[in-house]
Amino acid sequence: MKIGDRDFRSIWAEEDGERVGIIDQTKLPHELKIVHLTNMQETATAISDMWVRGAPLIGATAAYGMAFALRKDASDAGLAKAYDILHATRPTAINLRWALDAVRQRIGALPEGERAEAAWALAEEICDEDVETNRRIGQNGLKLIEAIARDKKPGEPVNVLTHCNAGWLATVDWGTATSPIYLAHEKGIPVHVYVDETRPRNQGAGLTAWELANHGVDHTLVVDNAGGHLMQHGKVDLCIVGSDRTTALGDVCNKIGTYLKALAARDNGVPFYAALPASTIDWTVRNGVAEIPIEERGGEEVSHIIGINDAGTVERVRISPEATPVSNYAFDVTPARLVSGLITERGVCNASEAGLSELFPEYARKRA
Amino acid sequence: MKIGDRDFRSIWAEEDGERVGIIDQTKLPHELKIVHLTNMQETATAISDMWVRGAPLIGATAAYGMAFALRKDASDAGLAKAYDILHATRPTAINLRWALDAVRQRIGALPEGERAEAAWALAEEICDEDVETNRRIGQNGLKLIEAIARDKKPGEPVNVLTHCNAGWLATVDWGTATSPIYLAHEKGIPVHVYVDETRPRNQGAGLTAWELANHGVDHTLVVDNAGGHLMQHGKVDLCIVGSDRTTALGDVCNKIGTYLKALAARDNGVPFYAALPASTIDWTVRNGVAEIPIEERGGEEVSHIIGINDAGTVERVRISPEATPVSNYAFDVTPARLVSGLITERGVCNASEAGLSELFPEYARKRA
Repeated sequence: MKIGDRDFRSIWAEEDGERVGIIDQTKLPHELKIVHLTNMQETATAISDMWVRGAPLIGATAAYGMAFALRKDASDAGLAKAYDILHATRPTAINLRWALDAVRQRIGALPEGERAEAAWALAEEICDEDVETNRRIGQNGLKLIEAIARDKKPGEPVNVLTHCNAGWLATVDWGTATSPIYLAHEKGIPVHVYVDETRPRNQGAGLTAWELANHGVDHTLVVDNAGGHLMQHGKVDLCIVGSDRTTALGDVCNKIGTYLKALAARDNGVPFYAALPASTIDWTVRNGVAEIPIEERGGEEVSHIIGINDAGTVERVRISPEATPVSNYAFDVTPARLVSGLITERGVCNASEAGLSELFPEYARKRA
Repeated sequence: MKIGDRDFRSIWAEEDGERVGIIDQTKLPHELKIVHLTNMQETATAISDMWVRGAPLIGATAAYGMAFALRKDASDAGLAKAYDILHATRPTAINLRWALDAVRQRIGALPEGERAEAAWALAEEICDEDVETNRRIGQNGLKLIEAIARDKKPGEPVNVLTHCNAGWLATVDWGTATSPIYLAHEKGIPVHVYVDETRPRNQGAGLTAWELANHGVDHTLVVDNAGGHLMQHGKVDLCIVGSDRTTALGDVCNKIGTYLKALAARDNGVPFYAALPASTIDWTVRNGVAEIPIEERGGEEVSHIIGINDAGTVERVRISPEATPVSNYAFDVTPARLVSGLITERGVCNASEAGLSELFPEYARKRA
């Protein structure tokens, strides 16, 4: 997507074939800092220190990390060592493991002399596939926006609410929840996005708002508390969120607070969709609330906030009393009954076992 | 309530009869700054600059402001001028107007020579009445906590979730939503409070957490997004919030985000109560969502956050891109159908016309 006049992906191989460009996302929205990765260790740091985040982008970055490693040591031992180092950077990220497994499997079968080049090509392929997957998610979700737009007066925008960042910064391009929005914008459909701040890490305020501002998409930042009021007063036509993990019955595990928006959507008759690639569907899990363990993160993410002061210095400030304990669950589960549908690269389906089985019969067969 | 070993109210007349003590709440939780008001202008500043906030406390402070003014000029013109100046400090605060009207009515009838002293006495009376009202709210709400405690294993706490600050800092003492909690704590009932951060002004993180920490009540700070997840997993026994305005049908207008917690409570079978003095009931309003205009405040409350940095300096930092527009609704309305009951100084009633009419027959008669 665009930053100013220039088209960006969140990760790209430079033409010299030696360096991989990324955006250090920890500096957003206050600074656009482009970093060039040139070896495996830098790549591992970029993942572990969250310069890159978002499951698809982590996977793509790790694939380049493997390619860097194989340039130095293409032996089986080198391959295994790189796998272990990169896997340890964010051990719970599903796509990280998926990308590393893909490289190990495809590259391990090749003679050592061909491995580095093949790994680099595979990393590029993983990136291109992610872009294509997200573009398809966008095309499928676009139909929902178009249908709402048809009932609007000319020039009246379709109002979409989103939570967290399921944007192009979390993928290689397009994003998942944002992909239908960007496509609608490109087709000239007036669209306006309510961006949930997304405490505690403020991915909405810092990343989604920044993306939309830079691509020129009309948007408004709101606190996470505001969505219910907006929906009560007809200000939201459609909610689209991402999904970190989707169960075989259609439950959606996503950033903490997603469930509250789904409740408000249901209470006010607002359609609520999750946009996700098939890779987030966990066919082994049925009841998300009961079965998915929710990551608890450090309390400082809640008690402290990072921002930029009037002098232009990025500072971390504490907002709560030192004596106050903090709990910080990172995700929650929205039961399928509150989800109007799932927007995938194959199409839109009901958030249910039947809906998913129809779109993904090969997985459903495997489970049966 | 207690700050360390010492009992505090949020406003108090010093024994010299000349000065009124308050806590500059804009400095909390980072500094306990006690300010002494000595004249009407200082009192007006204390209200307009939000050193004091919360409807009951604003009313009590304004009454002292009138007393200060009458010491300088006890004429009818002086009374009228003080009324206008103080009323302009927070024109939408219902209790401000109520307190000013009370002083004007009671004091205006007296000879000029008696006015200042009578106004001071009336201000003290308003404070004492507020304390008594809140204590009764606490006693009525305590029964709900006691009933839950009876079903717990010995030592297992009753988990209460609250939103915003309906604590002693918002009233003269006890608070409304916190009053049952403080009384339970005093009776030795183990109680633990989940404190919603309450974006954008962070009254939970900055005030409620500070109150509870200083009084020694077990509590945990959570982001506003977390309540749904906590309730899904049985971690909340009871929600108690305050109310800025309660309709004749039992709708509750309270801090933005209250509605989302009520939805989660309903979805998970958690009782959801609002604690409020009768003075917040607006018998002229029935449908809160349709009829109550919601204040929109400046966007900087969302885009900027105040905290203390590692060097101990209080700083304001911006968290979102400069180009991003912000919307900032201050309140939302929780429909009565989601409210398990209203905890008032007269008792606990259903959130309905029938329930309120039974507790407050004199108002119901007036309306009929």
